[in-house]
Amino acid sequence: MMANQKKFSSGGVEWSIRVGDGSPPKILVPQETLASRVWLGLKDKIARFVSRVWRFLVKAWNLAVDDPRKVIHCLKVGIALTVVSLFYYMRPLYEGVGGNAMWAVMTVVVVFENTVGATLCKCLNRIVGTSLAGLLAIGVHWVARQSGENLEPLITSKIDLTVVFLLTASAATFSRFIPTIKARFDYGAMIFILTFSLVTVSGYRIDKLFDMAHQRLSTIIIGTSLCILVTTLICPIWAGQELYVLINKNMDKLANSLDGCVSQYFDHGDEKTEKEDKALLGYKCVLNSKGTEDIMANFTRWEPAHGRFNFRHPWKQYLKIGASMRSCAYCIEALIGCIKSENQAPELIKKQLRNTCLLVGSNSSGVIKELAKTIKTMKKSNTIDLLVGEMNSAVQELQNDLKSLSCLSNSDSPSFQEESETPENKKTEKSQKAAATIPLMGVISVVTFASLLIEIVSRTEAIVEAVEELSNLAEFELTVSKQNQSNQKDEQTMQNSQMV
Amino acid sequence: MMANQKKFSSGGVEWSIRVGDGSPPKILVPQETLASRVWLGLKDKIARFVSRVWRFLVKAWNLAVDDPRKVIHCLKVGIALTVVSLFYYMRPLYEGVGGNAMWAVMTVVVVFENTVGATLCKCLNRIVGTSLAGLLAIGVHWVARQSGENLEPLITSKIDLTVVFLLTASAATFSRFIPTIKARFDYGAMIFILTFSLVTVSGYRIDKLFDMAHQRLSTIIIGTSLCILVTTLICPIWAGQELYVLINKNMDKLANSLDGCVSQYFDHGDEKTEKEDKALLGYKCVLNSKGTEDIMANFTRWEPAHGRFNFRHPWKQYLKIGASMRSCAYCIEALIGCIKSENQAPELIKKQLRNTCLLVGSNSSGVIKELAKTIKTMKKSNTIDLLVGEMNSAVQELQNDLKSLSCLSNSDSPSFQEESETPENKKTEKSQKAAATIPLMGVISVVTFASLLIEIVSRTEAIVEAVEELSNLAEFELTVSKQNQSNQKDEQTMQNSQMV
Repeated sequence: MMANQKKFSSGGVEWSIRVGDGSPPKILVPQETLASRVWLGLKDKIARFVSRVWRFLVKAWNLAVDDPRKVIHCLKVGIALTVVSLFYYMRPLYEGVGGNAMWAVMTVVVVFENTVGATLCKCLNRIVGTSLAGLLAIGVHWVARQSGENLEPLITSKIDLTVVFLLTASAATFSRFIPTIKARFDYGAMIFILTFSLVTVSGYRIDKLFDMAHQRLSTIIIGTSLCILVTTLICPIWAGQELYVLINKNMDKLANSLDGCVSQYFDHGDEKTEKEDKALLGYKCVLNSKGTEDIMANFTRWEPAHGRFNFRHPWKQYLKIGASMRSCAYCIEALIGCIKSENQAPELIKKQLRNTCLLVGSNSSGVIKELAKTIKTMKKSNTIDLLVGEMNSAVQELQNDLKSLSCLSNSDSPSFQEESETPENKKTEKSQKAAATIPLMGVISVVTFASLLIEIVSRTEAIVEAVEELSNLAEFELTVSKQNQSNQKDEQTMQNSQMV
Repeated sequence: MMANQKKFSSGGVEWSIRVGDGSPPKILVPQETLASRVWLGLKDKIARFVSRVWRFLVKAWNLAVDDPRKVIHCLKVGIALTVVSLFYYMRPLYEGVGGNAMWAVMTVVVVFENTVGATLCKCLNRIVGTSLAGLLAIGVHWVARQSGENLEPLITSKIDLTVVFLLTASAATFSRFIPTIKARFDYGAMIFILTFSLVTVSGYRIDKLFDMAHQRLSTIIIGTSLCILVTTLICPIWAGQELYVLINKNMDKLANSLDGCVSQYFDHGDEKTEKEDKALLGYKCVLNSKGTEDIMANFTRWEPAHGRFNFRHPWKQYLKIGASMRSCAYCIEALIGCIKSENQAPELIKKQLRNTCLLVGSNSSGVIKELAKTIKTMKKSNTIDLLVGEMNSAVQELQNDLKSLSCLSNSDSPSFQEESETPENKKTEKSQKAAATIPLMGVISVVTFASLLIEIVSRTEAIVEAVEELSNLAEFELTVSKQNQSNQKDEQTMQNSQMV
């Protein structure tokens, strides 16, 4: 047996033992000391943890920079909590509401939401839920005690009580499944169950039931009033305003997506900047914002008049506008499918339709942008009818172009020839005959694209209708002068011609 | 002046006074008595209220009949509440946890959710949030008190405390805006703020801080354990199972929608039953279920192994499947646009493509149904490759048919002639020349429909991929025998040929 010793660059030593039976030498790697391994593992884990925390902080920072109102909201919560905590520090107030001052703190933490509407919703739900449940529970209690004293032994009344308790709690729980209640009074129903349970159950222990109820209600009213004051007075975030801005932004995104889509299809060879790519995918925001729209519209019903919106502002109409925009966005999704499709039309055929398609696209997005402007300025647009007219005449032109497509002879489209030369099934003869007549297969992609564009135009008209309904319901003003109107029209036409 | 008196059928009396100047007689209608008017108004209101309550009850009843598990959930809440209330009735237990038994009741009401995952999520969030906040608050308190005694006057330490309090509450509030935290720990963050506030604030009043913390934690643990027991042992509703069923149902709906769509387009003259109309619109469920899918997938991460799902079941993959189904549903939306479009292709041209389109549609929906079966049985399908192959060859056939479309002479399509006879712009000549060659305008609608179908096929393949990935990740078994396989194939082919 031989033992060789080699020096390692790392300073360690490798021992290899050669057994005298001709087998290859076995290498003995010296085990790292336990301490160093633990240290290495720990170092690795700490490094990973630190980088994770760092990434998390960067994400949080970006979130704060993107929407500083979130930071303001946090400060508002801090202020409300500090003020409500004073109830603990100030002796007179403390004695006024007793140990129940805790409920005021709890109310602030639970009720304070990002938007005014959400906060008001929770506040009113909490107050009404608590009051109703308290009254009901005390009533049930009183009836049970009266009948218990006069008619039945105490034990039966207790069973009655339990049954009532069970039924009420279950019914209230079930009510939270009903959509209309869930949308508006879900929190109230929970508070109802909570209060009802607490009062019913504690009725056996605490004699001063009315005192307790009174104290709880007053602390809740203190907490909710404070929340309402802070949320409406310090940089208020209105759910209505949020919905309004969301719809507006989505409208712009939809218009840009449409523009990007059409130009991407016809000029796909050109280099696209990252910004243009982002604009192209803006329609996805429209597709995904249904949930947010519903939530915001739900909270608007709790909000008073604010900013440019009066109390009876038709918030529901924004949902209709959102739905019509989504229906348009579905078609843009299908357009993107055309762009990504493998069956692309020959460039020559694309060229034939390029200008009219670009015109239809830019006219349609122009209409959407004008609608966005209508909503933004809250003034009826004078140019919208003109723009819609232009859009429709562009569609007419596109339809004529589609008809003229068939004038192309197949000699102009080599790509189709290649395709038709590899037919694989029984219809070969028929299709070759077809190929000799007209390169239909080559134009399918572009025809699909064009007819989706036409569909988008008709869906854009649905958005126009929805916005018009809004402008009537919300009584938007007509203030643009005739002079302005013609200027704007010229501007719009110029823009369109520049884009095409 | 004359006064006439007429008898009314209603038993009332009408007095008309004729003034002597030739003017028509004035009729004096006797005022209804106040009481009767109030009574009528009241009756009307009561009737309306009763009918409203009645409709509400009917709605609730239907909800309960549709999904009896909702009723069971309500009973479960009732049971949990009853059990937890026993803490108030049983003296030994009551003395054990003191007046804080209230927290157990509160925990049950707040934490008990419909699905096991949601309940577990809230339970763990509540326990961890309370513990962390309690520890932190007591720690801060202790440090402040130590330094207050040794180094600074008490008032400074109070200010320090307030700053710490403000910072922590604000930071925790901000964390609720961060998407990853919002998805998993939103409730925990709220409970953290709540507990931190309560302990920090009450630290000045209650000396037995540790006792309080211990009691609160133990009542919360009692409440959460009870909730977990009831929710998992009595008819558990698993979020994972719900997600699984939702995806399965949506897949069937998508397949039926696709079938309905294609047959509606080609046989729109036929009478449609209400059921078929409903099936046609099934794709809307797919479009609208993103929110539910996200929520359910979020809760699955809290659930242990259950039913046929082990602990590491790849729930996220269901979201991918859902997304691929939605991408398919967008195209079906565009198909519906074709069906509703005013520009319909002449029946003759439709007939040319009818059979292949129906074949592509039924093959594609057959593939989706097979995928639904794969998920339902949790067994890898042996026929899926064959079905996908058939689908693709049907697409090939459709493409060939599209090519052969151009063989039609325009004499067969009178509708196109009508259209081309009303041209309104400069391209008139060109388009009329086109019309003489080939009725392209008339086929645009059907070409669009067909190419959307082809797009749907390629998106169906994306669903196939997503489901295959799921079957690999979740290790679905391969159990269908060769014999079965060929039988199934025959069955499938028969079904397809029957549908065409």
